[in-house]
Amino acid sequence: MTDVAIGVDGGGTTARAGVVDADGRTVDERRSGTPHGRDDYPGARAAEVVADQVLELCRRQVLDARLLPIGVGLPGLVRRDGHLAFAPNLQSASGSDFGALLCEALGRSAIVAENDANCAALAEHAWGAVRGVDDFVMVTLGTGIGGGLFADGALVRGRSGFSGDIGHMVVQADGAPCRCGGRGCWERYASGGGLLRLSREAALDGRLPAVVARVGAADRVTGEDVTAAAADGLEEAIAVVDEVGWWLALGLANLVAILDTGQIVIGGGLSEVASLVLPSARAHLVELVEGYEARPAITITESSFGARSGAMGAALVAMERAS
Amino acid sequence: MTDVAIGVDGGGTTARAGVVDADGRTVDERRSGTPHGRDDYPGARAAEVVADQVLELCRRQVLDARLLPIGVGLPGLVRRDGHLAFAPNLQSASGSDFGALLCEALGRSAIVAENDANCAALAEHAWGAVRGVDDFVMVTLGTGIGGGLFADGALVRGRSGFSGDIGHMVVQADGAPCRCGGRGCWERYASGGGLLRLSREAALDGRLPAVVARVGAADRVTGEDVTAAAADGLEEAIAVVDEVGWWLALGLANLVAILDTGQIVIGGGLSEVASLVLPSARAHLVELVEGYEARPAITITESSFGARSGAMGAALVAMERAS
Repeated sequence: MTDVAIGVDGGGTTARAGVVDADGRTVDERRSGTPHGRDDYPGARAAEVVADQVLELCRRQVLDARLLPIGVGLPGLVRRDGHLAFAPNLQSASGSDFGALLCEALGRSAIVAENDANCAALAEHAWGAVRGVDDFVMVTLGTGIGGGLFADGALVRGRSGFSGDIGHMVVQADGAPCRCGGRGCWERYASGGGLLRLSREAALDGRLPAVVARVGAADRVTGEDVTAAAADGLEEAIAVVDEVGWWLALGLANLVAILDTGQIVIGGGLSEVASLVLPSARAHLVELVEGYEARPAITITESSFGARSGAMGAALVAMERAS
Repeated sequence: MTDVAIGVDGGGTTARAGVVDADGRTVDERRSGTPHGRDDYPGARAAEVVADQVLELCRRQVLDARLLPIGVGLPGLVRRDGHLAFAPNLQSASGSDFGALLCEALGRSAIVAENDANCAALAEHAWGAVRGVDDFVMVTLGTGIGGGLFADGALVRGRSGFSGDIGHMVVQADGAPCRCGGRGCWERYASGGGLLRLSREAALDGRLPAVVARVGAADRVTGEDVTAAAADGLEEAIAVVDEVGWWLALGLANLVAILDTGQIVIGGGLSEVASLVLPSARAHLVELVEGYEARPAITITESSFGARSGAMGAALVAMERAS
């Protein structure tokens, strides 16, 4: 492995780039917003954002952007060659040869791409919350929900490297419309987008009178308003956070039934909210896991690196590929 | 491996035992009903049924029941030592040390136990529909729905050997009550039990007038009545079969999102119904899989051995263990 690499986590809302060393230390980092909506030249604007981050980090750390190992984590269905086959939460780049666009912008011949949640799982496994744990599921809560599955000490990649797209597991047939084109996907209930949707719904239903009074109008209530109010101890807000916790537990219970996983790590851009939602998710998991009493204990832990683990894992993948 | 073994598939409705050779040929077999409801001595009656089958097969084939490798496939959460930790569809044996009871009844020291759908997956992988295929999901349709997951050429067992309990993946939050204690489990919509439930519901809703006329009363309509009428081309029955196909496709789409599986094998006790339901499931899969167009083709095939694959796989596990 090389000693240092740049990893980028190109999320649905924010791109985070980090200079990471072989011990998993983030030496330097940058954050920028990612472009929304469909792009006339899919991937072009998003690649520009990422290239700017990489070039700025290289300038600051005196690194050569043409030679340094660079890995990119992307949301959705990602092929190892950098083709972003389908990305409902990063529609500006969905369907693009993102890796090629980035190489062009940086004047280099190759980068390594991987699903963002797979990157997070690899980082937590190498350096963080599940160091040495062979079987676990990484769940990243951000704009959507991503997943990285470890079995017998290795990442389960699936046929095309697309595995772990757990946010698009349907938990409510004919439920809320999802950006992927489907309905009732888990991430419509338990991600950052799900929190916003359930908060707005509760506000419009009249279940958040105090929050609405603070904000001014029901249709301006955000997820942050609700989590802030819940952190302050406001009962009406705690009830909405508990609702999100129930939906989170429901999807986790499905993953336990399917994969018999004993450890779940929660990370992603919404990691700060996790400490608020997890107690409720843990409580509901007991009632929602099939045969809970017949199983050994199931633990849900927070990621060690929070929103950083995606970029760290992307760097790790690049280092491993370069070695 | 030994040349021959007995495999038993103890299902929620029927137990099937087979004498199987190393090439996967079923030399002789028996079928009996399994006991329903909770048992005062959990597992005792079910073990008696299975022991009778084994002894009868040994008598007919002049085999020694105390020495022959014997494997048992069981529905639900099965430990390798034969402990049936949780079995919502075989409640008469749920929580029992089924392997120990069977050993006692047969006067032997050990048998091998494995989840029934895992057995089916192993048999289809060794001898059948997915010979040589490294990544696939086996789905057994019977009283419930079972699953066996293959990744990189090996069965994914999970932490306690409980993986693949896909029938208890919730696809309808707060949906139909399930025998497991939960609500909205996939098997309430797409198994033999699901077919019965949806058929009865359609009959009581007045959507199956011709079938009800044949049977005499709406609350006597069975899944078999509906599949027989659908096979005859009766539109109202075809609509119910299509509904089951939609639910089957919904759960399969979830598994594709989670595992990125390219091949799905449908087997189990309800295999005969599969040929009726699969065309509809295949059609709905296209609309239900996230990013369908961005993925290579996904194939759904019928198992090679139908309802037999569970017993065959149980025999295979026993042969491998004895070698």
